[in-house]
Amino acid sequence: MAFKFKPVDTAFYNLLTAQAVHLVEGAALLAELLDEGTDRTELAGRMRAAEHEADETTHEIVRRVNSTFVTPFDREDIYALSSMLDDVMDYMEESVDLVVLYEVEHLPEGMTEQIEVIQRCAELTAEAMPRLQAMKDLEEYWIEVNRLENTGDKSYRRILAKLFSGKYEALEVMKLKDVVDSLEHAIDAFEKVANIVEQIHVKES
Amino acid sequence: MAFKFKPVDTAFYNLLTAQAVHLVEGAALLAELLDEGTDRTELAGRMRAAEHEADETTHEIVRRVNSTFVTPFDREDIYALSSMLDDVMDYMEESVDLVVLYEVEHLPEGMTEQIEVIQRCAELTAEAMPRLQAMKDLEEYWIEVNRLENTGDKSYRRILAKLFSGKYEALEVMKLKDVVDSLEHAIDAFEKVANIVEQIHVKES
Amino acid sequence: MAFKFKPVDTAFYNLLTAQAVHLVEGAALLAELLDEGTDRTELAGRMRAAEHEADETTHEIVRRVNSTFVTPFDREDIYALSSMLDDVMDYMEESVDLVVLYEVEHLPEGMTEQIEVIQRCAELTAEAMPRLQAMKDLEEYWIEVNRLENTGDKSYRRILAKLFSGKYEALEVMKLKDVVDSLEHAIDAFEKVANIVEQIHVKES
Repeated sequence: MAFKFKPVDTAFYNLLTAQAVHLVEGAALLAELLDEGTDRTELAGRMRAAEHEADETTHEIVRRVNSTFVTPFDREDIYALSSMLDDVMDYMEESVDLVVLYEVEHLPEGMTEQIEVIQRCAELTAEAMPRLQAMKDLEEYWIEVNRLENTGDKSYRRILAKLFSGKYEALEVMKLKDVVDSLEHAIDAFEKVANIVEQIHVKES
Repeated sequence: MAFKFKPVDTAFYNLLTAQAVHLVEGAALLAELLDEGTDRTELAGRMRAAEHEADETTHEIVRRVNSTFVTPFDREDIYALSSMLDDVMDYMEESVDLVVLYEVEHLPEGMTEQIEVIQRCAELTAEAMPRLQAMKDLEEYWIEVNRLENTGDKSYRRILAKLFSGKYEALEVMKLKDVVDSLEHAIDAFEKVANIVEQIHVKES
Repeated sequence: MAFKFKPVDTAFYNLLTAQAVHLVEGAALLAELLDEGTDRTELAGRMRAAEHEADETTHEIVRRVNSTFVTPFDREDIYALSSMLDDVMDYMEESVDLVVLYEVEHLPEGMTEQIEVIQRCAELTAEAMPRLQAMKDLEEYWIEVNRLENTGDKSYRRILAKLFSGKYEALEVMKLKDVVDSLEHAIDAFEKVANIVEQIHVKES
């Protein structure tokens, strides 16, 4: 059976890997937000283009899941994995978009840590996706992503405490909270991807 | 088989169509929000009644999905479709409710465009649901809803940019953002309905 | 068949009951928030510990669902039930956490009613879970939880109306809204648990 369905299998693994590689690219764009002198409007344009490309890959997976008779693992798991990877990209794009839309000038300090977590999660996820085929060496991945999510959560909470400490104007708090919320959602979505991989692993092995 | 289970099939299509027709009614009520001189408290009451009626139809579908042995397409797809149609209604009702609850006086301009998008999406959805039976002529529907969602998104972002431009008080921004967020969620839910229809189409054809 | 799979069945019912019992404990901690003189930082620590314990039970269920060949009812229903029970705990923990993080001093009045609803829902849910095995006497449970959710919704809306009445500063409104939103989400999640139980009941009987 492994031999017979090999072609189908490989396509799915490649597409999931492609989705995760889009996230590495997205995270790199996100990091440019922190550089001084970045043209943020132009950056938001590139981010939007990256998000559209990622969307194409997601649609390709959905089409294949729905039209393929035998999939390497449960079709709802592929679908859940793919749509959660897509959510990560949406949240990354949203955060850059809101910075531009709200004309935010000074980003909160802790955001650097959030973006570092996102970059590391994206790399780990892109490295893990191809390992789904052999269903091996995945545990270190989901443990590390869960640990990173914890770190990200601490940064997020530190930022919130500062935002609500009374030093900021209410309107500024609303703007900045929306931006860091998007980043926090991106990190949470990475953790959900890792949890889905863990579940697939338990089921298939 | 098609002959044997015809009665069951028709019931599901009729119920999904009924749900979408409730959305057309809900969208019409929503549009009354824009008319000068509308008694908004009374309108919120009619909206709530419409939402309750729509709920009844949703429950009827859930009961049937769970107690019917053979369904026209995957039971999780019927369930997903029905519960997303229900979400649209909830968001429409929420937006009117918040206007009354927060005692909002002046609605942001761009809201007119959001509501126009909702009305058009509701009509298209109500026209598409009966076509699920023959599983034909659906593509134009999901393409158009995706295009409308895009238009809605642009209106939403224009409203946000204005709300956060510094011309409004923070408390007013919070109130109006909650209202336009509900409308944006309604539009997003219409798009999700269209995506589910697209997936069913790929799977069944 | 009932005899053959009895051992498996019992484990699942016990674990779901254990999850609901964690919610009763969590709701009791939540109620301490209302007592004068409570050390809220210490309380948040105990709440976090309770949430971690509940997480363990959730993971145990997920592991079993994925590695058990025959489950007492559809595996996606067990999974949905378990993950929704987990969501309730997360929202309860979040609400206490935000009170500490935002250094909220005065809680809005209506919060007492929200917490009473949560306590009652937790008790009813803990009593209902063991009855899943015989799939009997469950109707009163889901009807009552739906009624309680309605009561909770009324309290929530009264709190919102007051928060936005103009008597509070915008920053304070943002803080308090986040806290009462968490409680409202906990109540909504209890209702979703009850809806899932109703669906399982329709399907299995």
